[in-house]
Amino acid sequence: MDVTKNNFAAVFSDITKAIEDADFLAIDGEFTGLDTPQVGHVTFYDTPEERYQKLRKGSTDFLLIQFGLAAFTYDDETKSHTAKLFNFYVFPRPYTRQAPDRRFLCQSSSIDFLASQGFDFNKLFRDGIPYLTLADETQLRETIRSKHKDYSQFSSPAFMSPFGADPGPSKGPVCVPDEHKEFIADVGNKVAKFLEQDAEDTLQLPPCGGFPRKLIYQTIRLKFSSSLHLETKSGEKKERYIVITKIKGEDDMKAKEQAKQNAELNELDDAVGFCKVTRLLSQSGKLIVGHNMLLDVLHLINQFCIHLPKEYEEFKSLTRCVFPRLLDTKLMASTNPLKNHIHNSTLGDLKKILEYSPFTKPKVDLPEEFSRYSGNEHLHEAGYDAYITGLCFISMSNYLGSCQNPPKEYIPPKSQLIEPFINKLFLMRVSDIPYINLSGADLQMSREHVFHITFPKEWKTSDIHELFSPYGNIQISWLDDISAFVSLYKKDNAQAALKGLSAKNSVYRVVTYEAYKKEISPKRDVPVSRKRSSEDVDIDMANKKRKSLNVQLKPAILEDKKQEKNGNNSSGRHSDKKAQGDANDDQGDNKMETGEKLFDESENWD
Amino acid sequence: MDVTKNNFAAVFSDITKAIEDADFLAIDGEFTGLDTPQVGHVTFYDTPEERYQKLRKGSTDFLLIQFGLAAFTYDDETKSHTAKLFNFYVFPRPYTRQAPDRRFLCQSSSIDFLASQGFDFNKLFRDGIPYLTLADETQLRETIRSKHKDYSQFSSPAFMSPFGADPGPSKGPVCVPDEHKEFIADVGNKVAKFLEQDAEDTLQLPPCGGFPRKLIYQTIRLKFSSSLHLETKSGEKKERYIVITKIKGEDDMKAKEQAKQNAELNELDDAVGFCKVTRLLSQSGKLIVGHNMLLDVLHLINQFCIHLPKEYEEFKSLTRCVFPRLLDTKLMASTNPLKNHIHNSTLGDLKKILEYSPFTKPKVDLPEEFSRYSGNEHLHEAGYDAYITGLCFISMSNYLGSCQNPPKEYIPPKSQLIEPFINKLFLMRVSDIPYINLSGADLQMSREHVFHITFPKEWKTSDIHELFSPYGNIQISWLDDISAFVSLYKKDNAQAALKGLSAKNSVYRVVTYEAYKKEISPKRDVPVSRKRSSEDVDIDMANKKRKSLNVQLKPAILEDKKQEKNGNNSSGRHSDKKAQGDANDDQGDNKMETGEKLFDESENWD
Repeated sequence: MDVTKNNFAAVFSDITKAIEDADFLAIDGEFTGLDTPQVGHVTFYDTPEERYQKLRKGSTDFLLIQFGLAAFTYDDETKSHTAKLFNFYVFPRPYTRQAPDRRFLCQSSSIDFLASQGFDFNKLFRDGIPYLTLADETQLRETIRSKHKDYSQFSSPAFMSPFGADPGPSKGPVCVPDEHKEFIADVGNKVAKFLEQDAEDTLQLPPCGGFPRKLIYQTIRLKFSSSLHLETKSGEKKERYIVITKIKGEDDMKAKEQAKQNAELNELDDAVGFCKVTRLLSQSGKLIVGHNMLLDVLHLINQFCIHLPKEYEEFKSLTRCVFPRLLDTKLMASTNPLKNHIHNSTLGDLKKILEYSPFTKPKVDLPEEFSRYSGNEHLHEAGYDAYITGLCFISMSNYLGSCQNPPKEYIPPKSQLIEPFINKLFLMRVSDIPYINLSGADLQMSREHVFHITFPKEWKTSDIHELFSPYGNIQISWLDDISAFVSLYKKDNAQAALKGLSAKNSVYRVVTYEAYKKEISPKRDVPVSRKRSSEDVDIDMANKKRKSLNVQLKPAILEDKKQEKNGNNSSGRHSDKKAQGDANDDQGDNKMETGEKLFDESENWD
Repeated sequence: MDVTKNNFAAVFSDITKAIEDADFLAIDGEFTGLDTPQVGHVTFYDTPEERYQKLRKGSTDFLLIQFGLAAFTYDDETKSHTAKLFNFYVFPRPYTRQAPDRRFLCQSSSIDFLASQGFDFNKLFRDGIPYLTLADETQLRETIRSKHKDYSQFSSPAFMSPFGADPGPSKGPVCVPDEHKEFIADVGNKVAKFLEQDAEDTLQLPPCGGFPRKLIYQTIRLKFSSSLHLETKSGEKKERYIVITKIKGEDDMKAKEQAKQNAELNELDDAVGFCKVTRLLSQSGKLIVGHNMLLDVLHLINQFCIHLPKEYEEFKSLTRCVFPRLLDTKLMASTNPLKNHIHNSTLGDLKKILEYSPFTKPKVDLPEEFSRYSGNEHLHEAGYDAYITGLCFISMSNYLGSCQNPPKEYIPPKSQLIEPFINKLFLMRVSDIPYINLSGADLQMSREHVFHITFPKEWKTSDIHELFSPYGNIQISWLDDISAFVSLYKKDNAQAALKGLSAKNSVYRVVTYEAYKKEISPKRDVPVSRKRSSEDVDIDMANKKRKSLNVQLKPAILEDKKQEKNGNNSSGRHSDKKAQGDANDDQGDNKMETGEKLFDESENWD
């Protein structure tokens, strides 16, 4: 079911129960964008830590705007699952003037892609569920408390004391500019009439701007230092107007103020909104399954819990703390024995593949209220993607069970069979390291067959191929116009290539991957001691941007959002190279340099 | 009428004619956000140049997404105007993979405000008109030319030469990973069958990911080095698939390639999109009227013409060059003799005020196809706001005419009476300088009665008032938690205040405005020699952010977008001060520090 601000409170207990009852949970997110290439291209030879840093800096200024949650429960008797599906629209509408007013990035191609999939942006912006992280909530609660305390000391911010208590130093007489005199006089007459008659207890003034409102406050206080309570309210179209209420003595005043204060605290509670869901998810400690879920996890933590730490190891322990048990179905599908039977691990295709032999389509019941997805494809809608991610997980787990001796019919989420996949997040398009290991050290792979090459900016793919042609087939991962990583298909040729190409020469320069890393390491260790705030995210981005000024961006190709999650690592200045690259489409090239997202999987080419 | 990508080409000639025929043009824009306070709060004491720099850095990462154009023509016989109204939805959809994929900022409160006004974001993102600046267009045209040239040298990027021409160095045999073998074999069979039969000339393969597509290209080339043309196309949902076409000899091949190249050039032409409108506006040289139009002008130039220059004087001459004749109705309404009769210059209110004595409601005919706005309020829809801006201009001009001796009934846009307003852009909430003068030096005002004060962060509004109380009423413009500008209502007290407060003391520090400016000027003159690219805009923003880390933002209050255009200059850490400020709502405070947009006009308080 779709969950917006309109039904969030009503269905929250259902969500809570669904999570409580679930054997495992599947999730998915949709974002306003994926990457800002200026923070550094992702490359085939990113280490897990480098990739984390690139995503932290280049992806977290975008927003998660739709969140899918599928809660799966297994029934031993019917040997089938039941799934409850929630598709949340999430938008950080500032709930009051005090609440954070977020600035966030959008990527045109991502917005265009979501629009082409029928994403309802009007629903998002009009009815999205707001949220406040614990830090935001705490600060706002403190602000409200302090205001309420001030009130008890002085007077209500919006209250004209009927008892002459001075709410602060006086600043002289009311000064009404000429052009406002008629308007203010008019309001004065209205209020006088309102005070004379008994029929109405409140008077709503017509909407007006802030300055006239200020004049009204001033004037009414001077003219009618009697029992009047003034409050500014907002209409449906954000127009603001003053409501004047008659006060019947001090008790009435206190009661009105108390009611107002309670309403403010309730409003704050409502504003926590979607963060209540992520808190439930976290507290459940249950297995959470996602497909190519690294970006989902980063956004969930950064947007709804706490800013991602600068330190990679800190990120790992934070993630274990927030989500103690994660599993990435893309990693599962890319690992043997499953990989042998899966030619395409893009979510939509994976689901189909897993419905046929040697896999078995799982039996899953959707209760009536969650049946919108039964029989219909809604790819790239977070709720649907979460649902089919769960289906894929069940199919793949059961396949692992069927390989046992004797075969097992059902593999529970706590089975030892899936333990090898726990807390490992798939790394998109990294050549040799398939995942981030949240629960331990990352894999370290020999990169002795990988070289860093610098060359004239006129060079194209074919020039690099020609240079390396004596050493067999190569894979190129462009870094910018004048440099790239090159890896040999035949690792045994590494020594020969180094010998043949590393001699000094004025046109190009070839060094080993290791030597290159050593060279750049001092530059990369700029100390950043400050704490990240919600608004400083793109400082790092901007710093990096300096290095790639005038680099024009190419659209990410969003054939498959999952395929896209690690973004686009190409620049427009490669366009000539791209043309050449396309011409070589059949040449076994690594297409990383063309701006195309050709690889669905992290392919090992050797 | 609404103009989207669906009817843009069809109505473009109407737009051209409307501009050609017009006596004057009125415009308005809607944006995804207004300001990033981190680049520096706007203050009551910004100089015009400072304000320009703050807006350039803090506002131009947002997008103009809706543009209103009202073309007014006066008919001497009927003594009335005719208006043609266009409401453009504008969105930078990347039209190809080579086109720029823009990252842009959104401000939650602005999006929320537009949504509450019924703005149709689905229409924007699905049907918005794309655009390419001249620089983008030139670069893309060059890319396409270079690709076409490469083709004539080698072969089409997507063409498998039937004559064995080698499109580049060969990289060995096709290596199909096990899991793809079945799929590729299947495609091979399909293609073989397709070649055998004569019925169809083209074969559309099912959509698949980039890596399988690459394998298909490779395989088909090896297996069928015959007359086949392969091209990758995109479906409605962005899925990509290969279309194979039979080629009947070299001429057919050339014709097909020529047709494809022509299509590419036409596509580029279409992609220029909305920039064609801004080019028409610019070339017309006609009077362009806007209401509080500084941000509109900045966005129009930056987004559709050329990046805003770092140098303020360069901005002025650039603007005169792009839009030689501008007039801001908010400035007109805030200037005597008009100001005397106008208590509120917010656009919607202004329109109403100008319909009654001493003003006259202008007679304007709307042709049938533009009549959607007749009789209906659509405030904050760019087309409507442009329309009523034009109405306001006519009313105010005619009023100026009526003050003449003898009175003039009609004031043409070239009249000497409006000349004093030409090329002066209203400055929102600057205390003493009402406008940016594009055609000359800006006004310089004495700020001898203005002080800069630094104080402990516990201080609230009332503490500052108390400190200055011997010198009469003051206006406070907060800079951050620990500093503010303070100006005296009674300028004559300036010397006394300076004498009384500027002595060294450990709690606070008061210096003159002038002294403060001298102090900070070296810091402000960080040389930035690089040229701005579309993607480096927030570098400056981020630099500034460092100064205000951990400052939490408050929502801009969008009662009136125009009122808002200069954004929100408050920080959450003032929240305690704010509470106090609210309590003092009737104290004649300057509310700048409370995060509220109280001032509709740039008020002179003395």
